[in-house]
Amino acid sequence: MAAEARRGPRRGEDTRAAILEAARGEFARAGYAGTSLRAVARAAGVDPALVHHYFEGKDDLFAQSVVLVSLPGPPASLAAQVMEGPREEVGLRAVRTFLGVWEARRSSFEALLRSIVTSEEVARAVREFLTQEIFGRVVSGLEPGLEEDERDLRAGLAATAATGLAMGRYVVRLPGVADADPETLVRRVGPVLQGYLLPR
Amino acid sequence: MAAEARRGPRRGEDTRAAILEAARGEFARAGYAGTSLRAVARAAGVDPALVHHYFEGKDDLFAQSVVLVSLPGPPASLAAQVMEGPREEVGLRAVRTFLGVWEARRSSFEALLRSIVTSEEVARAVREFLTQEIFGRVVSGLEPGLEEDERDLRAGLAATAATGLAMGRYVVRLPGVADADPETLVRRVGPVLQGYLLPR
Repeated sequence: MAAEARRGPRRGEDTRAAILEAARGEFARAGYAGTSLRAVARAAGVDPALVHHYFEGKDDLFAQSVVLVSLPGPPASLAAQVMEGPREEVGLRAVRTFLGVWEARRSSFEALLRSIVTSEEVARAVREFLTQEIFGRVVSGLEPGLEEDERDLRAGLAATAATGLAMGRYVVRLPGVADADPETLVRRVGPVLQGYLLPR
Repeated sequence: MAAEARRGPRRGEDTRAAILEAARGEFARAGYAGTSLRAVARAAGVDPALVHHYFEGKDDLFAQSVVLVSLPGPPASLAAQVMEGPREEVGLRAVRTFLGVWEARRSSFEALLRSIVTSEEVARAVREFLTQEIFGRVVSGLEPGLEEDERDLRAGLAATAATGLAMGRYVVRLPGVADADPETLVRRVGPVLQGYLLPR
């Protein structure tokens, strides 16, 4: 620890945190395509080489600063939260969990949704995140023996319901959906997630 | 008709069609925010005043050139197609109808999806289109006496399922959803639309 601190003007964790904070600001302002690692380094007051030291590239930096920060914890714990409880209520828990996360992080979440469609790299990152880290995990957890095609289809359809709801509530702002109280959405959309994740 | 033709170098319908075609090209290339009515006029080879003569503004031009062109006919006929048949199959018909439209117009439809999140004006146009012209019409047609809040909620949720499916298949390209054959999606997503439009 002490050795780490002596390497530069900041401790490693501080540097990493400063880069993440600067990246969030740059991505929010200039979008994914318009953000360079050099600009992030400048905003963070660090050498560009340090950005490359801590992050594998722009997509990694985006995932760490925007995608993961819009979550309350690691993706695995989110998936665990959805799975924990009666199987026949997994859909309700999923919607309640997501809405809880989104409502508390509206602005960074909206930035993420906007970035999905403007950058193929972000779309890929979100795709992998949704299908592997969240819904793929949930589906595999619920039915371990499922064939890959069927697992992908279930996880993917659940992801369409979740992203459609998020788009409708935060970006397109559909009347009825944008102003519904969260529990109304849990009651209406929960059965949909249930049917996608565990069709009867 | 003959009098119309004498007013300018082109007949009215030809001028309008030329403006629409130029607008599609400009919106596809520069996006909604980056397209000016002046640039559209230039691309169409007409006086900018003519663009204002035929269209109320940029949002109207976008609706006419991109939103409506991604449909096979007027929105009312699309809504009618969804409603016509047994009530308990309205969800299946909705998904089958939309997929039919989307698959045949993938690229302009993708451009539309991308524009929704980058422009508040486009989001508003799409919101009004989805809730009033399509799903509002279907819900009102199925249950005329419904209270406004409930009608908006049903129409809005149906719109989240449809846009989520479109995003997942054409923009995010979720495995399982992007490569599923259309009838598989009709079977899985149909009951969801059914439950949103006509909850039991």
